[in-house]
Amino acid sequence: MFIIRSMKLSDGIEWGIHVTTLLAVLPPEGALPAARLAEFHGVPAAYLAKHLQALSRAGILASIHGPRGGYRLAKPATEITVLDVVEAIDGTEPAFRCNEIRRRGPTAQPAAAYPLPCGIHRVMVSADLVWRASLRSVTVADLVTTVANDGDPAGLVAGAKWIRDALA
Amino acid sequence: MFIIRSMKLSDGIEWGIHVTTLLAVLPPEGALPAARLAEFHGVPAAYLAKHLQALSRAGILASIHGPRGGYRLAKPATEITVLDVVEAIDGTEPAFRCNEIRRRGPTAQPAAAYPLPCGIHRVMVSADLVWRASLRSVTVADLVTTVANDGDPAGLVAGAKWIRDALA
Repeated sequence: MFIIRSMKLSDGIEWGIHVTTLLAVLPPEGALPAARLAEFHGVPAAYLAKHLQALSRAGILASIHGPRGGYRLAKPATEITVLDVVEAIDGTEPAFRCNEIRRRGPTAQPAAAYPLPCGIHRVMVSADLVWRASLRSVTVADLVTTVANDGDPAGLVAGAKWIRDALA
Repeated sequence: MFIIRSMKLSDGIEWGIHVTTLLAVLPPEGALPAARLAEFHGVPAAYLAKHLQALSRAGILASIHGPRGGYRLAKPATEITVLDVVEAIDGTEPAFRCNEIRRRGPTAQPAAAYPLPCGIHRVMVSADLVWRASLRSVTVADLVTTVANDGDPAGLVAGAKWIRDALA
């Protein structure tokens, strides 16, 4: 299968980062069920569920059982990077898939003739590494600070009230 | 439509970079038809054709008519970056598509309440910019140097002979 324009990240990443940022402002021991998280973000609960499971498997979220159960962060927001969320949802595989086409065609040589990765592959891997480093340099705690600084005051008040009601 | 793992670049990028690198070592005025380029890379000619057209539209390749016609670089290899090829084939749209989910749900505010781009969006845009900067820092001429330095001697000789025969 060939795909012409596919350098796209899944929508799940946007949702995963928003959810993680919201959970970062809950009071200690607070947790929100999947349905509430979906409601807050205006997204389908069934779809969000699988991303919440992926974030749990990656050790970013913890799932708490019981009447006040739900999801909360599994570790401090200062220790969760944006890259952690991206990789939990989209995986760690680099964007560029090298098919080793240098080994095809009439001038192809035996495999032993290619001890080094293809130079083109190396360029793409380097770019992928700086992309990941950039996402690794920002934590979910940083995102909370950004939202607090930039957010619309009425929206922040409404959000705080919504969280208080949801936890009540 | 939701896509779970989609941070993938198209195969066309790998082919486009290989083709551009091959054309960079042709003698002045040399050109290779699409069928020959496909043969060299062991890829379907029909599929390669549309990428060659995209590279031409982007001003990276020139299409020469006539009996010795075909494709050649439209400008010096030192002036074509890997990013130019990537964007010619996959477009310039960032990988992250922001759906502004911050404006959804029960705490959504009027549009005027969001004068700044979402902080999450900004983090993803920054990462996209460093990814593109990394690809912009390498030219097709650099790739030729890499292949010449790292390539298998027998493969390089076979490649040179193939080019000579193809241009004859």
